[in-house]
Amino acid sequence: MAGAEAIPALYQSGYFGRPKDNVLYLRFVEAAYLLYRNKIEIFKDKTALDFDAFLKFAALKEDFFELKYIVYKDLKERGYYIQSAATDFRIYPRGGSPGKTAAKSFVFVQSERIDLPFSALIQHLNNTENVRKQFILALVDEESDITFFEIKRVDQNNGFFGEMSYPIPDLKTGPEGFRPIPAILLKERVVLDNKTVSEKLYQNAFFGKMMDEDRLQLSLVEALYLMEQNRIEIFNLNSEKMTPDEFVEHASSIEPDFMKKYAIYKDLKDRKFVPKTGFKFGTHFRIYEKVESLDKIPHSEFLLHVISPDHLFKMPVTSGAIRLANSVHKRMIYAADTGRKIEYIEFERIKM
Amino acid sequence: MAGAEAIPALYQSGYFGRPKDNVLYLRFVEAAYLLYRNKIEIFKDKTALDFDAFLKFAALKEDFFELKYIVYKDLKERGYYIQSAATDFRIYPRGGSPGKTAAKSFVFVQSERIDLPFSALIQHLNNTENVRKQFILALVDEESDITFFEIKRVDQNNGFFGEMSYPIPDLKTGPEGFRPIPAILLKERVVLDNKTVSEKLYQNAFFGKMMDEDRLQLSLVEALYLMEQNRIEIFNLNSEKMTPDEFVEHASSIEPDFMKKYAIYKDLKDRKFVPKTGFKFGTHFRIYEKVESLDKIPHSEFLLHVISPDHLFKMPVTSGAIRLANSVHKRMIYAADTGRKIEYIEFERIKM
Repeated sequence: MAGAEAIPALYQSGYFGRPKDNVLYLRFVEAAYLLYRNKIEIFKDKTALDFDAFLKFAALKEDFFELKYIVYKDLKERGYYIQSAATDFRIYPRGGSPGKTAAKSFVFVQSERIDLPFSALIQHLNNTENVRKQFILALVDEESDITFFEIKRVDQNNGFFGEMSYPIPDLKTGPEGFRPIPAILLKERVVLDNKTVSEKLYQNAFFGKMMDEDRLQLSLVEALYLMEQNRIEIFNLNSEKMTPDEFVEHASSIEPDFMKKYAIYKDLKDRKFVPKTGFKFGTHFRIYEKVESLDKIPHSEFLLHVISPDHLFKMPVTSGAIRLANSVHKRMIYAADTGRKIEYIEFERIKM
Repeated sequence: MAGAEAIPALYQSGYFGRPKDNVLYLRFVEAAYLLYRNKIEIFKDKTALDFDAFLKFAALKEDFFELKYIVYKDLKERGYYIQSAATDFRIYPRGGSPGKTAAKSFVFVQSERIDLPFSALIQHLNNTENVRKQFILALVDEESDITFFEIKRVDQNNGFFGEMSYPIPDLKTGPEGFRPIPAILLKERVVLDNKTVSEKLYQNAFFGKMMDEDRLQLSLVEALYLMEQNRIEIFNLNSEKMTPDEFVEHASSIEPDFMKKYAIYKDLKDRKFVPKTGFKFGTHFRIYEKVESLDKIPHSEFLLHVISPDHLFKMPVTSGAIRLANSVHKRMIYAADTGRKIEYIEFERIKM
């Protein structure tokens, strides 16, 4: 609380606190900042507290007070107007201020050491999207540096679709039309021994990788996709034809989360993207919007990692993944099949 | 086995197999490659096997045959001479060949889906270093692309040392000399409220980060290091002085592997490096060899991640970490304290 005469000037100098009935109610971070700037004095039991004493007091009373103070001070010094929100802060666009413009962003402050549950993230996104705000995660690392991420659903508004016009090339193999091509399942991959079909699948739709001039190696997700579309039939090493169930059982024994990954792969194909492995980037997929010719493969636009709805984002790992995507000029997306829908969530590092 | 007359020519055409008593013993990968190249025929029960039949046969008999074949074929087509080794392959330097030169590298082939235990890696490194070979890990991803990593100890030969001449600046605080500076422990960081000392620690040795003009925020590892060197004394929020044990207990409650990380931090300081957090890169540390002035902070040379001796390298995660280090022009190092010594292992992606 501040003396009644000083309130209007103090409030209007930076829209600090919440004025009510001639009293200005300040949050601890606001009070600490105004104390540091020598704009107010803080008394406890009639004794004035210096900054360190107030820091200790606030840190005892409010969980992660110091993190919030670090972010609050940083944003103030960048010239933003900040107010309290359902998340930690609500900030106004540059040139805007409370009463004049609507707030632009909700800022959520978190330590790099605390995991962020996917479910909590979705809750935050729903809350911010409902009021059409930007959602910003401010991560404070152990050395008190702040990294800002904008997090958003990528399938809002303008959609999330590729432009690959033929997800599976026409595979007619003779005058009688089409029949599934036989392929062999090795332990972790499937080999197709048909030069014409192999070249079509590889050249026209970027399936698999040629083993030699005649044979195409398919990944397990690619193989299941082509099997489900009735384009190939798969035989095991004993030359027995496999059912899709048998194939899934085998693939899941190699990769426990195979079906979780396949659900996203299939959805991406339905969206006319070209998903290929993201192994070199440590993610499940790298994604092209379109591959016209293998002679000029474009840069992939996205890295995509598949997670479970009960995923906990480890912040250092997540930060590294986003940094890598940035440094190779790709967008970083996490995808989770919640059962109700597939959520595609983008994390983008932003400068404030 | 090949007919006796053809053996010398076949062997010398590419140093395939192991000739002995007029018989040439071929490994499955060599036989498959020669079959693909139409250099040999393979008979089983008096029937000639085509490539697919032999592929199935070999895949049933030899674990991960297809992975080894993919790498073998790739290296052959790059013009290397290859022979069997304790690891999967032994390869000769460009221009060299068996009998003429010594082998240069041992190649170990692995699926991206299989974890590599740190202990197995150390065993491989010992074996290759004993015979002065280069150790190469060939990782085959789900789409049959190969990524080659050279793995080596960085503290061999030329050593692994920084050039920071004053790991802790001279902190004399008065005519009577030096005494520890009081600092406050907040939840995840330590704040030092002494303008002169704060600036010295920050400006001269890149400790912590300034909170404002007067105060320095230290990370938990930095704080323990300065506490152990008797440069600071740490008080909790109730203004009670903490013992090092109490501090370690608190830090370990925040970060369960705190002491594992601290052991490496301290060793790096002893080696005259400047370790700072690698959070933005998803690693424990980024490391500078020397920081002369904060006005021109150089690029950090290394990213370093601390692991346990029982660590299992997940290959997609490891591949992503190395790719990120590469893309920001840093070297990627993993460090583990085995109790007997601290191992510093570098992973470098190489083109073959």
